[in-house]
Amino acid sequence: MAAAAILPELATQVLIPVAAAVGIAFAVLQWALVSKVRLTPERRADGGAAAKAGPADYLIEEEEGLNDHNVVVRCAEIQSAISEGATSFLFTEYKYVGLFMGIFAILIFLFLGSVEGFSTRSQPCHYSKDRTCKPALANAIFSTIAFVLGAVTSLVSGFLGMKIATYANARTTLEARKGVGKAFITAFRSGAVMGFLLAASGLLVLYIAINLFGIYYGDDWEGLFEAITGYGLGGSSMALFGRVGGGIYTKAADVGADLVGKVERNIPEDDPRNPAVIADNVGDNVGDIAGMGSDLFGSYAESSCAALVVASISSFGINHEFTPMVYPLLVSSVGIVACLITTLFATDFFEIKAVNEIEPALKKQLIISTVVMTIGIALISWLGLPYTFTIFNFGVQKTVHSWQLFLCVAVGLWAGLIIGFVTEYYTSNAYSPVQDVADSCRTGAATNVIFGLALGYKSVIIPIFAIAFSIFLSFSLAAMYGVAVAALGMLSTIATGLAIDAYGPISDNAGGIAEMAGMSHRIRERTDALDAAGNTTAAIGKGFAIGSAALVSLALFGAFVSRAAISTVDVLTPKVFIGLIVGAMLPYWFSAMTMKSVGSAALKMVEEVRRQFNTIPGLMEGTTKPDYATCVKISTDASIKEMIPPGALVMLTPLIVGILFGVETLSGVLAGALVSGVQIAISASNTGGAWDNAKKYIEAGASEHARTLGPKGSDPHKAAVIGDTIGDPLKDTSGPSLNILIKLMAVESLVFAPFFATHGGILFRWL
Amino acid sequence: MAAAAILPELATQVLIPVAAAVGIAFAVLQWALVSKVRLTPERRADGGAAAKAGPADYLIEEEEGLNDHNVVVRCAEIQSAISEGATSFLFTEYKYVGLFMGIFAILIFLFLGSVEGFSTRSQPCHYSKDRTCKPALANAIFSTIAFVLGAVTSLVSGFLGMKIATYANARTTLEARKGVGKAFITAFRSGAVMGFLLAASGLLVLYIAINLFGIYYGDDWEGLFEAITGYGLGGSSMALFGRVGGGIYTKAADVGADLVGKVERNIPEDDPRNPAVIADNVGDNVGDIAGMGSDLFGSYAESSCAALVVASISSFGINHEFTPMVYPLLVSSVGIVACLITTLFATDFFEIKAVNEIEPALKKQLIISTVVMTIGIALISWLGLPYTFTIFNFGVQKTVHSWQLFLCVAVGLWAGLIIGFVTEYYTSNAYSPVQDVADSCRTGAATNVIFGLALGYKSVIIPIFAIAFSIFLSFSLAAMYGVAVAALGMLSTIATGLAIDAYGPISDNAGGIAEMAGMSHRIRERTDALDAAGNTTAAIGKGFAIGSAALVSLALFGAFVSRAAISTVDVLTPKVFIGLIVGAMLPYWFSAMTMKSVGSAALKMVEEVRRQFNTIPGLMEGTTKPDYATCVKISTDASIKEMIPPGALVMLTPLIVGILFGVETLSGVLAGALVSGVQIAISASNTGGAWDNAKKYIEAGASEHARTLGPKGSDPHKAAVIGDTIGDPLKDTSGPSLNILIKLMAVESLVFAPFFATHGGILFRWL
Repeated sequence: MAAAAILPELATQVLIPVAAAVGIAFAVLQWALVSKVRLTPERRADGGAAAKAGPADYLIEEEEGLNDHNVVVRCAEIQSAISEGATSFLFTEYKYVGLFMGIFAILIFLFLGSVEGFSTRSQPCHYSKDRTCKPALANAIFSTIAFVLGAVTSLVSGFLGMKIATYANARTTLEARKGVGKAFITAFRSGAVMGFLLAASGLLVLYIAINLFGIYYGDDWEGLFEAITGYGLGGSSMALFGRVGGGIYTKAADVGADLVGKVERNIPEDDPRNPAVIADNVGDNVGDIAGMGSDLFGSYAESSCAALVVASISSFGINHEFTPMVYPLLVSSVGIVACLITTLFATDFFEIKAVNEIEPALKKQLIISTVVMTIGIALISWLGLPYTFTIFNFGVQKTVHSWQLFLCVAVGLWAGLIIGFVTEYYTSNAYSPVQDVADSCRTGAATNVIFGLALGYKSVIIPIFAIAFSIFLSFSLAAMYGVAVAALGMLSTIATGLAIDAYGPISDNAGGIAEMAGMSHRIRERTDALDAAGNTTAAIGKGFAIGSAALVSLALFGAFVSRAAISTVDVLTPKVFIGLIVGAMLPYWFSAMTMKSVGSAALKMVEEVRRQFNTIPGLMEGTTKPDYATCVKISTDASIKEMIPPGALVMLTPLIVGILFGVETLSGVLAGALVSGVQIAISASNTGGAWDNAKKYIEAGASEHARTLGPKGSDPHKAAVIGDTIGDPLKDTSGPSLNILIKLMAVESLVFAPFFATHGGILFRWL
Repeated sequence: MAAAAILPELATQVLIPVAAAVGIAFAVLQWALVSKVRLTPERRADGGAAAKAGPADYLIEEEEGLNDHNVVVRCAEIQSAISEGATSFLFTEYKYVGLFMGIFAILIFLFLGSVEGFSTRSQPCHYSKDRTCKPALANAIFSTIAFVLGAVTSLVSGFLGMKIATYANARTTLEARKGVGKAFITAFRSGAVMGFLLAASGLLVLYIAINLFGIYYGDDWEGLFEAITGYGLGGSSMALFGRVGGGIYTKAADVGADLVGKVERNIPEDDPRNPAVIADNVGDNVGDIAGMGSDLFGSYAESSCAALVVASISSFGINHEFTPMVYPLLVSSVGIVACLITTLFATDFFEIKAVNEIEPALKKQLIISTVVMTIGIALISWLGLPYTFTIFNFGVQKTVHSWQLFLCVAVGLWAGLIIGFVTEYYTSNAYSPVQDVADSCRTGAATNVIFGLALGYKSVIIPIFAIAFSIFLSFSLAAMYGVAVAALGMLSTIATGLAIDAYGPISDNAGGIAEMAGMSHRIRERTDALDAAGNTTAAIGKGFAIGSAALVSLALFGAFVSRAAISTVDVLTPKVFIGLIVGAMLPYWFSAMTMKSVGSAALKMVEEVRRQFNTIPGLMEGTTKPDYATCVKISTDASIKEMIPPGALVMLTPLIVGILFGVETLSGVLAGALVSGVQIAISASNTGGAWDNAKKYIEAGASEHARTLGPKGSDPHKAAVIGDTIGDPLKDTSGPSLNILIKLMAVESLVFAPFFATHGGILFRWL
């Protein structure tokens, strides 16, 4: 056989946990820096001390309102209200989801255990029939444990993300008094806390689980990594509910608040008189932060699992070469270091001095992380892989060289960058597409919507070509393993991706707090500028999430097909074709459910907000406080109730199709959902992002053209607000949930593959 | 071998042209009945004579305005303006498209001729290597001729449809003075003229072409029917430009007219003061009538060709059994007779007496035609097919019984009915979905759009299951031949389908003419009621078009795969998968182009209409006439210019993919475009239909609930108008064009298959 990898096993065993530890340490450091901004007015001088770190005299904006202690108190109050609302919602959500996950865990155990009738006897391995593997019952037990582990990690990730974000929002507001640069660094550092914490803990938990499971499995790596895929399923299932529940919550509140506040009552966004304003800000944290954290964690866990499960039946697994076996984890380890270096460019090496530097700074993050990571991948591919090895490719072993695998990871990484740039182009108001959409508001909301939808559709083209190219290259070079590591490559800079992604909702909240605390117009302008860049980064983050989801799903799908022992998935067989067309329909069904849910919940919210405005005397005048809690309750109840049907659709479809129609039809469903869902997901999130920024473009009035459309309250602006409102559920509920739909169905099929292969397809058998 | 069919060849040779002749005669009869409504005031008494045919005293509505001769004159004037505009546009369109088609015809000849280097020597047959077939050059020549023939038939179909519709619109308006029942019959009869003329002439031309081509081809049926597929390609290419060009024309005018007229100037729809009103009415005829006629003719031609080409390499073709060979034409012949019987139920056996009877009457048409046709299919399957025969199934011959083929046709037919009913449920304002959308207008345009989009997504579910079930059954029973005849089954009632479909725009025009001629409010109410039912039938018609397109494309795709000698289309090969994901993207690209085109053209229209209102004195007061011609010119120029890029995208994609990437990738593209496009097409046309009828629901105020949302001009009504405007390009431009995209790419691939198989895939060969 080929030569071994340069990196010895012991070094690998040290390197991975150390990288994870470094990531966590860096997150803690960033947190410490953010926490220097004090939320207690007495110690404001200390806050000033933190400011000394940067050369404040470079800032173009003047400091203002620094001595207003009341503002600090109000900010602290609002922050704690948001934090309490978010915590309480997440606990309620986790209670219900926990129940569902418990039932599902039992299902996993029962279904997988039944494969060999709960026998405790060892059995011949699935891929190498001449060897002996652990019993199917062990797979059932360990898959279930891995599932629970994945779910809990995802849950903790989301919760911590929310805690960090609510910790950071008011601090960003306060820093905005000192200038846009300070505020940017606070928001960005907080995002980095979340990014590094998630990336590192995801890696660490997976690493520990592999080692612990390994104690039982010994040299049965095939069984070990099959059971580990449960981790990905757990992570994604949790993410689904997080995204859907959080997405409905945040958009019901947002749409409801805007429809009455901005459209009917003509009060500004985030005005404290609006009863739904706290719910809206809570929503940003439970939807965009907790949901997105869970989502990207799920993608990361799944792409790692997909790569590992294919590796375990390739030469690495067969020959028990530990270092190349955990190559996916090594890539993630290097990613943490690369992102760490990248972050310093945003927080320490350069400084934001003006509003128009924010977007370039974030864009630079993407470029730097990609360049640094490319070097890192080259290095780890050279050190961590033997020069020649074989990869399992639907029944045959395919010979691959280490530089080819480097290309696979790199193509994913760079495709991610391209998707990021294209997304930026289509959603940033610095370029013509969004400006055209803004311009179309001249003739009203209808043309705005037509142009916005067309923009979203158009924005799909280049990302799909980028994804197709990465798939073609990685698939041709290293079969499904290549696709899996390409996905991992796209996600390898997840820490930076999450940082710039979380930065958005934090800035959004910061703006809300500034408005509610009654801070000056100039401070609001600064947070608005941060927020506009945040809309773009949010769209970029979604682009990454979707692109990686497409690659991950394909890899999982390939692993599923191998495990289910299908040799081809031929479109020209009736079983597969009906799966394909029904699968392509599922994203529509799912979107219909989630959008209708947001719509209905928003209607309830509108009624409540109207009721309060009509019945609470002095509310419009600002002399009495609105009843925030009722609005929070409406959002909570609606999202808990409404997240179940779409969740069930996604979780049950693979089970029903697999059991009734068998693995061929299920393969069709997976392929159909993948190729159809990725398009809707990209177009929905870009359309929404573009509408949001078209509105901000008009509001900011930064150019001659923009001023002809404004100011706030003009007819074009009203039309833009309508577009923004329509975009809300598209970009924050249905769109981003779709990538989970794609991934989750694939990973679930993979986990249940042994069961389907044994007991599936009863309808066709019966016919 | 199996026994022959009961029907002898001679009987078949008589039956088909006779059925076609009967269809044409019936169309002429209906035309004669419509023409009894006189557009010259002197002879109004004769018009009254026509009214005697029906027992007028049954009508609930009173006759009114019968003696106002000026109204008749005005109607005649308006009608001639619309007719002139439509004729002039179509001539311009045909001029440009003719050029494009000429170039494409040369391409077909050159590409197919080059397969064997323009050799005139006979060659071994493709499927039966032991026989001798005509040279590839003959295929090139006859395919080109068939292509031109298909294009010309499609062109004539569209043109005649437009002529009939513009002949009928003013007559419907005049009849509306006598009551809604009279108006309904006039509109419906005119629709029937078009339906029967198209169905019969399509059949006749195909029949004649087969017989004429047969003189040269002799017993080389494989070559004969391969060349005949050019007919489908010609029909669909023409249809593409018709749909896209007409769609852009009609919606640019409609959106432009509404945005200024209804929204800004607060004047009613179709008000003669609106400068874009003539362009809008012309648009209905060139888009909804000519475009749709070409589209359905294309579907019909393609499904026949797909079935014939598969039959030619099955036992029918190999054994030269003429009657079963032309079974697809026999099904269409029976369809004409079945539809003839069905039509009598609408025009003679029953009579509409009130507004709420219109929709049930149209629905009954669907049911009756389906039931009658089921009997017809059973009969012709028994008479026209041997009990046992074999069907070519990707390289092997599969044994099929005649009753199985009956099931294939019937399942397509009934799936069409289900799609029709589901479409009706989601787009008619008699049911809760549209009422919910109307209700959501309470909170503004944003919720209206969110609910509308969700409705469209949801409406996809059942049609997709119906299509999937038909595909599964027909595919399992008789492979691709089964799928082709299922498509033919769905289209076998095309005469009735077209009748109720054409009825819509005719009623819409009739309403416009009533408004422009200054007829009373009550007459406008009657035409509005006809039109509301027309929106639903238009959506149903689109549902049929899309459903049949899905089946047709699959059949063509299967024929292509057979012809290109691919054995499997395995999703899990990189070549196919990238095709699949890129193919699934194409409908988005295409929609982005067409929607943006409508948006831009509408903006130009808005500017012109605003300019006229601002600069022409006395326009708003109705004392001066607007400059209609400039608006007509804007629509014409925009649609001619804007139809080229989307047209080129569809026509060139198969060529580029086939030449550069080869047949496997092209297979992926076809499958991807099919499963993705069908969803967008259904959701787009249902969303648009629902918005239109939600608006009409509020305007009509027929229920307690509807009245709380109205009246015209209320805030909910304004929100509904915005939704309607957004829906316009979705339902009339991008949505219905997508089914042509799907079909056209498939038929084009089939026609070029010999070329791709010989010279395709140069990029992969070069690598």
